[in-house]
Parts: sequence; C-alpha cells; structure tokens
Amino acid sequence: MDASALQLLVPIAGIVAILFALYLARDVLSRDTGTEAMQDVAGTILEGAVAFIRRQYTTIAVIALIGAVVIGVVITLVETPEVADVPELTNPAWGAFAGLPIGLMTAFAFLVGAACSMASGIIGMYISVKANVRTASAARRSLVEAVQVAMRGGAVSGFLVVALSLLGVWGIFTLYDTFVGNVTVAEAPFLIVGFGFGASFVALFAQLGGGIYTKAADVGSDLVGKVEKGIPEDDPRNAGVVADLVGDNVGDCAGRGADLFESTAAENIGAMILGVAVYGIAVAAGWPNPEAWIFFPLIVRAFGLLATIVAIFFVRGSETEDPMNMLNRGYWVTTILSVGGLALVTSLTMNTNGGTGEAFGLPTWVYFFFAGVVGLATSVAFVYITQFYTAGSFRPVREIAEASKTGPATNIISGTAVGFETTLVTAVTIGIALFASFWLGDQAGLVNQEGVNVGGIFGTAVATMGMLMTTAYILAMDTFGPITDNAGGIAEFSRAEQGAREITDRLDAVGNTTKALTKGYAIASASLAAFLLFSAYIDKINLIQGRRIEAGVPGAELLDSVNLANVNVFIAGLLAAMLVYFFSSLAIRAVGKTAQSIIVEVRRQFREMPGIMDYTQRPDYARVVDITTKAALREMVAPGLVAVAMPIAIGLLLGFEAVAGMLMVGTISGVMLATVLNNGGGAWDNAKKYIESGQLKDDQGNVLGKGSEAHAAAVVGDTVGDPFKDTAGPSLHVLVKLLATISLVLAPLFIR
Amino acid sequence: MDASALQLLVPIAGIVAILFALYLARDVLSRDTGTEAMQDVAGTILEGAVAFIRRQYTTIAVIALIGAVVIGVVITLVETPEVADVPELTNPAWGAFAGLPIGLMTAFAFLVGAACSMASGIIGMYISVKANVRTASAARRSLVEAVQVAMRGGAVSGFLVVALSLLGVWGIFTLYDTFVGNVTVAEAPFLIVGFGFGASFVALFAQLGGGIYTKAADVGSDLVGKVEKGIPEDDPRNAGVVADLVGDNVGDCAGRGADLFESTAAENIGAMILGVAVYGIAVAAGWPNPEAWIFFPLIVRAFGLLATIVAIFFVRGSETEDPMNMLNRGYWVTTILSVGGLALVTSLTMNTNGGTGEAFGLPTWVYFFFAGVVGLATSVAFVYITQFYTAGSFRPVREIAEASKTGPATNIISGTAVGFETTLVTAVTIGIALFASFWLGDQAGLVNQEGVNVGGIFGTAVATMGMLMTTAYILAMDTFGPITDNAGGIAEFSRAEQGAREITDRLDAVGNTTKALTKGYAIASASLAAFLLFSAYIDKINLIQGRRIEAGVPGAELLDSVNLANVNVFIAGLLAAMLVYFFSSLAIRAVGKTAQSIIVEVRRQFREMPGIMDYTQRPDYARVVDITTKAALREMVAPGLVAVAMPIAIGLLLGFEAVAGMLMVGTISGVMLATVLNNGGGAWDNAKKYIESGQLKDDQGNVLGKGSEAHAAAVVGDTVGDPFKDTAGPSLHVLVKLLATISLVLAPLFIR
Repeated sequence: MDASALQLLVPIAGIVAILFALYLARDVLSRDTGTEAMQDVAGTILEGAVAFIRRQYTTIAVIALIGAVVIGVVITLVETPEVADVPELTNPAWGAFAGLPIGLMTAFAFLVGAACSMASGIIGMYISVKANVRTASAARRSLVEAVQVAMRGGAVSGFLVVALSLLGVWGIFTLYDTFVGNVTVAEAPFLIVGFGFGASFVALFAQLGGGIYTKAADVGSDLVGKVEKGIPEDDPRNAGVVADLVGDNVGDCAGRGADLFESTAAENIGAMILGVAVYGIAVAAGWPNPEAWIFFPLIVRAFGLLATIVAIFFVRGSETEDPMNMLNRGYWVTTILSVGGLALVTSLTMNTNGGTGEAFGLPTWVYFFFAGVVGLATSVAFVYITQFYTAGSFRPVREIAEASKTGPATNIISGTAVGFETTLVTAVTIGIALFASFWLGDQAGLVNQEGVNVGGIFGTAVATMGMLMTTAYILAMDTFGPITDNAGGIAEFSRAEQGAREITDRLDAVGNTTKALTKGYAIASASLAAFLLFSAYIDKINLIQGRRIEAGVPGAELLDSVNLANVNVFIAGLLAAMLVYFFSSLAIRAVGKTAQSIIVEVRRQFREMPGIMDYTQRPDYARVVDITTKAALREMVAPGLVAVAMPIAIGLLLGFEAVAGMLMVGTISGVMLATVLNNGGGAWDNAKKYIESGQLKDDQGNVLGKGSEAHAAAVVGDTVGDPFKDTAGPSLHVLVKLLATISLVLAPLFIR
Repeated sequence: MDASALQLLVPIAGIVAILFALYLARDVLSRDTGTEAMQDVAGTILEGAVAFIRRQYTTIAVIALIGAVVIGVVITLVETPEVADVPELTNPAWGAFAGLPIGLMTAFAFLVGAACSMASGIIGMYISVKANVRTASAARRSLVEAVQVAMRGGAVSGFLVVALSLLGVWGIFTLYDTFVGNVTVAEAPFLIVGFGFGASFVALFAQLGGGIYTKAADVGSDLVGKVEKGIPEDDPRNAGVVADLVGDNVGDCAGRGADLFESTAAENIGAMILGVAVYGIAVAAGWPNPEAWIFFPLIVRAFGLLATIVAIFFVRGSETEDPMNMLNRGYWVTTILSVGGLALVTSLTMNTNGGTGEAFGLPTWVYFFFAGVVGLATSVAFVYITQFYTAGSFRPVREIAEASKTGPATNIISGTAVGFETTLVTAVTIGIALFASFWLGDQAGLVNQEGVNVGGIFGTAVATMGMLMTTAYILAMDTFGPITDNAGGIAEFSRAEQGAREITDRLDAVGNTTKALTKGYAIASASLAAFLLFSAYIDKINLIQGRRIEAGVPGAELLDSVNLANVNVFIAGLLAAMLVYFFSSLAIRAVGKTAQSIIVEVRRQFREMPGIMDYTQRPDYARVVDITTKAALREMVAPGLVAVAMPIAIGLLLGFEAVAGMLMVGTISGVMLATVLNNGGGAWDNAKKYIESGQLKDDQGNVLGKGSEAHAAAVVGDTVGDPFKDTAGPSLHVLVKLLATISLVLAPLFIR
C-alpha cells in the first residue's frame, strides 16, 4: 500500500463508519422500549425535541442562507477591484468560476458546511431521543446491556458526525481540486475555508440555542419544583420536567455534535493549509507523493474512525464493574490503535530524509509521528485532569463541599477559586504540548526556499490531528451522558422499579463525568488548534498579498510578523478579551431570562391546577416546552450576532494585522474563561452529588446529607454552575473557532 | 518662565504638597475626638492597625531586602559576561559604578522605591485611623464638617503618596543623571526602573496582605454575627468587629496607597523612557530644551498636585446637599485646572513646529495637549461608567436586586452576568483613548533618524500622564471611603446618637461609591499605561541589543517587532492569561482560609463567654485581631511569590520576545478580570443596599426589605463579591504593573 492508495482510504473509511453507524442504529432501535409509561414520556420528549429542533434549525437555516448570500456578495465585491489589478484572479485556472471566483466558491462551501453541521446536530439529537427509553428499559434487566445501548446510541452520533465532517471536507476539497477549472492541490485548501466557517456558524447558534434551552429548563423547573414545592427532580408533577428532559437532548447532544463537527472540520482545513507549505518543499525536492502532506489530516482522521469502530466492541464488562471502566477500556483501545495508525500513516507518507536542517539524522516521519503522539497524550492528560477537578473523590470537590457548611456564599467563593485554579494545569499542559510538537517538527528541518523552517508549525498541526483521531469515541462517550440522564429521568418519571432506577442513577453519574471529559477535550483541541489556525490565517494573508505584490498593487506587503507594538494590534487584543466576557454575559443572561418565563408558567400551573400535587391532574408539559422553545430561540440571536459582528468590525476598523492580535488574545482568553466556567460548574455539580452521597460530615461525625443546610448551599452552587458549564462554556469553544474561521474567510475584506 | 525653570517646579511642587499635607494633618488632628466610648474603640482600632502594619511591613521589608540582594547579584552576574564583550559598560561614563554598574544601581533604586512605597502605605493608614473617630465626632454636629474632616484626612494620604512618588522618581533620576559618573539624561530613565519595581513589589504584598485581612475579617465576622447570631453589623458583641474595622484601614487605605504609589511611579518612569526617543529627535533638530521631553511627565504631575491643592478648598456645601456633590465639585476643579496646567506645560516645553511628517500645520504642543486631554477625559469617563454599573439607581444593580427574589442562585448568576458585561464599555473606552492619543501623537510627525514616527507612542504616554494629574484627588476620595466606613462603625459601636449615625450612614454610602471609582480609575490608568510600559520594554531590549551589536556579540539583533507567530510568544501569552486567574484563585482562597480561622474563634467566644450576648461580658477583640494578622500575613506569601516567579520563569524559559507576549496578554487579561471582579463585587454590594433601602417590591407592590428572602439572597451575593472586589481585583491592578516593571528590570536576564 503506497501513499496515494492511502488517500482512497478517506472516503472508504467515511462510508464504512456511516454503515457501521447504521448497523448500531438498527441494533439500538431493535431493543424493546419498556413499559407503556416509559413509552408515553419518551414520546412526549421526542415530540418536544423534534419541535424545538425543527424551529431552531429553520431559524438557523434562514440565518445561514442570509450569511451565505452576504459572504458571496461581499467577497465578490471586495475581490472585484482587485480582479482588475490582479490578473491571476481572472485566470482560466479559476475555470467556470472565472470572474467571480472566490465569493461564489466560498458561499457554496459555507452552505455545504452549514448543511452538514445541521445534519450532524439533528442526527445526534434524534438517535439520542430514541436510545434514552431503550436504555431505561434495558436497565430493568442488566447494567451491561444498559451501558451498551447508551454507548451504541452515543456512537451512532459520534460516527455520523465525524464521518460527515471527514466526507464533507474531503468532498468539497476534491470537488474544487478536481472539477473546478484547474485549481492546483496547493490552492484548494484556501478555497474550502468557507466550509469551516459554515460549520462554526451553525454550531454557534446550535450550541447557544440548545445551551440556553437546556439550562433554562433545568434551572427554571428546579427552582419551582425542588426549591419552592419540595418535590424531587424529574417528578411528573412538575410541568417543566419534560422541557428539562428535552433540554438534555437539544443542548447536550445536538449542541455538542455541532460543536465537534465544526472543530474537526476547521482544524482539518487549517492543517491542510499548513500542509501547503510543506508540499512546496516536497515538490521542490522531488519527494514522492508531495500532495500527501496536504492530504495527511484526512488520512489520519480516517484511521481514527477505523480505530474507534474496533473500540466500540470493547465496551463490555460484568454486572458489578464500574461502568466508567467499560467506557475507559474502549477509550484506551481507540488511543492505542490510533498510535499504531499514526505510525503507519506517517511512515508511509513522510518517509523521507529530505529535511535540510534535520537534527539527529532520523527519517522525517519519526518527528511527526511523535508530534502526533503528543496530541494523543494531551487528550489522555485532559481526561485525567478533568476527572481530578470535577470528580468527587479528589481535593477540589471536597473543598467546595466543606465550604458549603458555612452556607451558599462560601460555597460560591470556593467554587470560583477552584474554577480559576483549573487554568493552571490546563495552560501548562497545552503549553507543553505546543512546545513539544513545535520542537519536534522543527527538528525535521523542513526549510523552504526562503530559508524558513516550516516544520515546527506543521508539527503542531500533526499534534492536533493526532488528538482528533479519538473524536468519534469522545463524542460517543459524551452523548452517552444525555442518553443516560434521560434514561434516569424516564425511569423516575414512569415510576420504574427500584433496581432499574439504581442502575440509571449509576449510569447518570458516569454520564456526568463523560460530559465533563468532552468539554476538557474540546478545550484542549481548541487551544492546540488555535496556534495552527492563527498560522493558517497568516498564510492566507500572504497568499493574497503575494498576488497583490505580483500585480503591483501599491502598499501591498507580506505579513512577516504580527507586530505587538502596533497600537491597533493591542486594541484588537483588548476588544477580543472583552468579547469573550461580553458574549458569556449575554449567554448567561439569556438563560436567566428564559428561566424566568418557565418559572412564571410552572408556578401558574401549580396555582391554577391544584390537582397536580396529588396526581389527579396532569400538568400541561407541552405548554412549557413551547414557551421554552420560543424564549431560547429569541435569546440565542443577540449573543450569536455579537460573536459574528465583533470580529468583522475589528477587521474593518483596525485592519488585518489587528485581526491577528484579536485571534491570539481572543483564543487564549476564550480558552481560559471556558476552562473556568466548565470546570467550576462541573465541580459545583459534583460537590452537590458528594454531599448527596453522604460523604460530608460535621465536626461530630454526623453525616450532612440531603436536606442539610450544607446541601442547600451546594444546590445554590450547582444552579449557578449550570449556565456556566452548559451554556456559556461550550458556546465559548465554538466562539473561539468561529473567530478563526471568520478571519480566514473574510481576510480579503481586512486588507487595505 | 521658560522650560528649564519648569523643571525646578517639580521639587517645589512636591515640597509644597507635603507642607500642605502637614497643614491638613494638623487641622484634622486638632479636631475633637468625641465621646469616651468613641475614643475607646478608636484606640482599639489604632492598636490593631498598628500591630498589623508593623508586622506586615516587617515581613515585606525582609522580602524586599532579599529581593534587592537577589536583583543586585543576578543582574551583576548576567551583565558580567556582557561586560567583557561590550566595552561600553565598563566605560568611564558609568563613573563610580564602572564594572558593576546596573546591578548595584538597580538594587539601590529598588530599595528606595520599596522604602517610599512602604512609607506611603504606613502614612495613609496612620492618618486614616486618626481621622475616623474625628469624623464620627464631627457627625454629631454637622454633615459638612464630617465631610471635610474625612476628605482632609483622605487628602493627607493623597498628597503624601503622590508627592513621595514624584520626589522619589525625581530624586533618584537627578541622582543618577547628575552625580553618577557622567550618565546622560537619555540613559538615566533606564537606570531608575528599579524604583518602579521596588514600588510595585511592595505594593503587591501590601495590597495582598491588606486585602486578605480586610475581607477575611469582614466575611468571617459577618457570617457568625449577622448570619448565625442575627446581630447587626459592627455590633460590639461580635468579637470580630474590631478586626473588621481595622481591616478597612489596612486594606483599603494602606493597600490602595501603595497601589497608586507604584502606578504613578511606574507609569512616570515608562513615559520618561519613551521621552528618550523624542529627546533624540529634539537634539538632532536643535530644538530648545530637548531634555524637557524626558522631564515632561514630572512637570505635568507637579501641576496636577498644585491643581489638587486648590481643589481641596472647594469641598464644601450646605447641610442638605448630597455629600457626593461636594466631592464631585472638587474633582471637577482638579480636572479643569489640570487642563489649564496641561496647556501651559505643553505649550512651554513642546513649542516647536519641527516634526517632519506633521499634519494640519499646527504647533507640536497642540497634538500632545489634546493627547493629555484624552487622558483626563478617560478619567472622567471611568468615574461615570463605574457609577452606572455600581450605583443603585441604574439598570445593572436593579437587575441583580430583582434576581434576588428567586434566591441566591439567580442573584449570583445575574451578578456574574453584570460583572462580565462591564468589560464592554471598559474595553471600548480604553480602546478609543489609546487610538485617539496614538493618532494625535502620530500626527505631530516626530520622525526619528531611522524614519520611524515615535510620536504615536509618546501620545499614549502623555495621555497617561494627563490621567495621572488627578491621582492625588482620586486617592483622597478613595481614603474618604474607609475613613467614613470606620466612622460609621465607631458610631454604631459606641452607640452614638441617632443623628450622628444617620450622617455617618450617608457618608458611608458615598464612601462606597468613591472606593468603586478609584478602582475604575486604577484600572483605566493601568490599561492606558500598559501599552506605554510595553513599548518601554521594547526600548530597553533594543538599548541592550544595540550595545551587544556594537560589541559584535553573535546573534544579537534589534527587536523590531514582536512576532505573534513565534510559538513561544503564544505559549507565554497563554501562561500569562492563566497567571491572572491562578493568582486570583490564590488570593480568593486566602480570604476563605483566613475567614475560616476567624469564624472558629468568634464562634468559640460566643460559646465559651455566654455573657457576650447580653453585654455583660466584653469579647476578646485583640485575640481575633491577632489571629487575623497572623493568618493574613501567612496567606499573602504564596500569591505574591507566584506573581513574581512566573514572569521570571517565562522570561528564562521562553526568552525576551515571549516576555513581550506575556506582557501584552497578561495586561489585557488582568485588566479585564479585574474589571469583572471589581464591578461585579460593587454591583452585588449595592444590590444589597438597594434592597435595604426598601426600593425592591414584589408583584403586589409590597416592599421586600431587610429580613426578606430577597435580602438574604442579596447578602450572599455581597459576601461573594467581597473578596472579588477588595482582594483579588485590586491585587490584579498591582500584578499587571508588576509584570511590566519586573520585565523592564530583568530584561538583561531574558536575552540569550
């Protein structure tokens, strides 16, 4: 098997993964759907979720269509005067699109990316909503079966999202490379950045809308049900409970699916752009298969998908085993097989000794193999870091639980301190990963004709791709979370037997951990990718400036380095750091406002329908779902538009060099704040669970459990953490990558 | 009066300000000290404050001495191999210090800066502790008299701090310029950066120690007294109450005094370094008084001091007037006189048409006069921005109060959203100020021999200096806060008559506002100065590199631009953004730990001394003061050392270019997080006050005041905000400037 045959593996792996996902979906759907009561509530959840998703994606589709038209027109307009100056843009090389090339191609790629992202979100939600009741039903029989149903349901989503992203990038790349005029393989990656922008554009609204929905429903129904009326969570008497269960699906599943779809797409495209520089060296040096340096990210990800398929079969165990162990086993299988795949791909595609400045005399592939391993190791490190900070058995969560003894104020102070503290190990780990992968790539000595060593930056790209190899498995584990959360809700709601509820409770706790892990993973990949996308932005600017210089446009010059001493770069950095907070403020406030609508409605139902409390009247669940849907969709627009408008405004007012400052500071600030919000929220959540499990004791050794003042204080912390960890934090992941894709796509606008 | 005569004004204004401060101090000390009960508690406060300050400053002095020795030795060691290579450093120009010049001179400047900063902190605290009881006593007679006593007490501190900073920088500059060898006026500013480092080093520990003390005492005594025992704030039965009153002085007075001392010193020195570039142009062009471009910051500040002296006499009014109006009147007088002073100074020192690239054909001074006005306007803008976000009559505080109706969780969520939101107007205002002052300076066309226009950066320096003109007045208003806070506590504690307590309550509310204003001012000046200090760092690097290039050191090159695409710059930025959170985490946690010690002790006293509750037993106040002192001093060390060690580690591991990235991202992140913490905390505080003043109503129009559930929720928010706004936030101001001074001083260490 030589390197060009490896390229064929990309569509094959994508299709195999989709077929496997269909097999898993059949398997899940063939399971029994439990008691009538279970089917009843599951049907209501499905109905609510579908109603929300339909309205949400209609809204998003409209916004995306407008976005595509605006992008097409604006880029065409901006390019047009250049076209007069820059003959190359009207070159027949641009084939059928000559005249209006980039604008249309970008808009088309944007729409394809948006459509794939929407498909990912919808599929993820749909399967999850089908798997929940089947997991609840399986829990009546066996822990292992329940784990398998939930994990397979999650894997359907994981495989489809990652395969769609792989096939989407591959398809549009191949389309532009092969069928449009005679665009070269080195130009094509720049033409498909619109795909990444479309994906992150949709992901932003999907994550915001879903995140606002899920947490508003959670906070709103808990505040009336648990706090005011003193009834348990997920109690059928609470009119908000179905909205809460719907929220798990539309927020956690659909949102995260869209988030990871755009991550993999944007990072993949960024890595391909960086590969272009190495491609140039390979062509000049006459190495075999030079285009493999550009294709590399696709091939690596294809191997990641295949590794994950194998790993799914390792999710098994005994009835007494900790379910987390079963999931971890699969994760380790994925990781180990990925290391093997990485060795195979790098040794086949990068097997040269051609670097002119090479250290140690090793073959080139060895450096990049280890750079990829750095990425995989970073992924593993984050899994354990997140567990330390958010799992109940370690110091941070215990500290918050202890602080709850003196009331909600000390609980909040302690949780904030823990959230802030988690930036330390996050930043240090990412810093080491960047440094190591850059250093490894640098040693390969890939020096281009201008005497610049481009291997270092490519090393960070390979590390990011290594990390992305496990995305399908991570996403499967993540979707496991809302499925088991829902299964627990359905069991509670349908008053299932005690044994089933014990199993779903255990699964729910594991699901909380896996949800937290995915956020750590998403943050780590966003940070690792930040430097890569930043470099890709500079490459794109220099591609445009190179053409302008050739055409003799006055004032055009290459961006050799972004100058921090330029006041506009500083101001852009300041505004970017602000954007991260302001955006989070809007997202958090949106949850508050939406929750307020829910509180009013649930209170009204309790007041006007007195039969609810003694089960003689059925609450109007659909009305709460409807109110939540409308409010969440209304509230997602403002933060979404701010996130899109601000980088454009900065670029237009302060220029393309300032945009680089915005990208750097925005990414760093966004990653740090998301870390604080995700981990702080996770730690608060688990401090509450720690107390509920009876592990907190007073000075005399009495257990301070449910109903104690410490527990009430911990509930406050948990509620505060909800919009932090499930709305603002995950939306920040998307924002950070949106900043990169928007800058890449609109770069021509910012050059004056 | 020509420009060289203006230079004489610097020591004269400094001495006049000190004499005026002594006059005010005499005036304050001559006032009566009230009833015996008042004198009794004031004496206890004085005792506790002196005990803390003595121990704290002994600790700080030891750390500073060690720091000075380390700096001296390290810089000497680092310079030594260079000395062999770079003959200029052994040049007789370095006079008596030839051979070991910079190390010793820097260490000496560090010690002088540290000593002046310590003196500022001690004086501020001492006068405040004397003025409090006199304000309480005056409140028995007249509102206006009470305002005047408190404001004059504050002004003593304001004048002494600013005059000491002015005389300190002037003195050490004159010393090095005049008496050491024959250092030129263009070299001297680089030699005195140690003064700024010494000042910020002491300020960091002073602010941390004081901030931890004050909030731990506040939180600790409130949690036991108000929450557990249900007795009022400042009730004499609470053993923690004296520690709380002591805390106002050692945290708010001594801490802020040291903070603003180092701000003015560091920014002044940074502006002088930037003046060196213009000095070079002036010398080459043969303009008169070229050294005035270097002296400029000192002269401007001297005028600011004189303006403030006049303004103090305008703090007067009628008994029925809002005290805030009286203070605002003085502030406006300061600002207007400062504009006049700015016009005078710029027209006398910069009266040339020499810029080669000048726009509009105006005299040079006009551009810089307006740049200075931008600085003054920024100061005014921040005063009103802070009022909007933290005063009870506006939307943000009302929003938090409304959210308190649904409990502590929604109060915290809403306050967080408000805190995050305040970054918007902060960043935009600073961005506009930087852009405008840079643009103005740029138009002056000060182009140096290399063809670089240095006027833009100098414009931002002039804006910063314009802003600093009002520092003495701002600091007087700030110290007004803890004095009136203490006066209220003394009135409550000594059970003074109702009329006096009403007046001290009104003053206390005003004091809360002025304290918030100062934080806004400190943040704005830190941000404006950030770019200036960043540029000064690059100038310093290039000074060193220029010498190394001349000496033929291999690999030495000028730092023309800091390259964001350098992976080390990115990593350093990431670590800097993390440092800001991690440092805050340590500071917040330190408050929690210290408060815990206080809670245990106050509870013990209530338990073991049952007579306390019915006033038959006197609590052991001194013991709580003692415990708080020890705990606060222990807890201040870790965050302080982290703040000092991290930039050094980044510089040593990643190099001098990365340090520039750290400076930029660290400053931006620090300013934004401090904004969130300060304003969020202030808004929570005032949301509680809003409810206490009976302005919150339920749906039926009933007042939800003290004792309501909404009030309890607002108390939680206030408690959470305490360590945010009074420990972590203000400490971040200092950290941001410490990053700049440490980089300036240790730059030789980071060059390899």
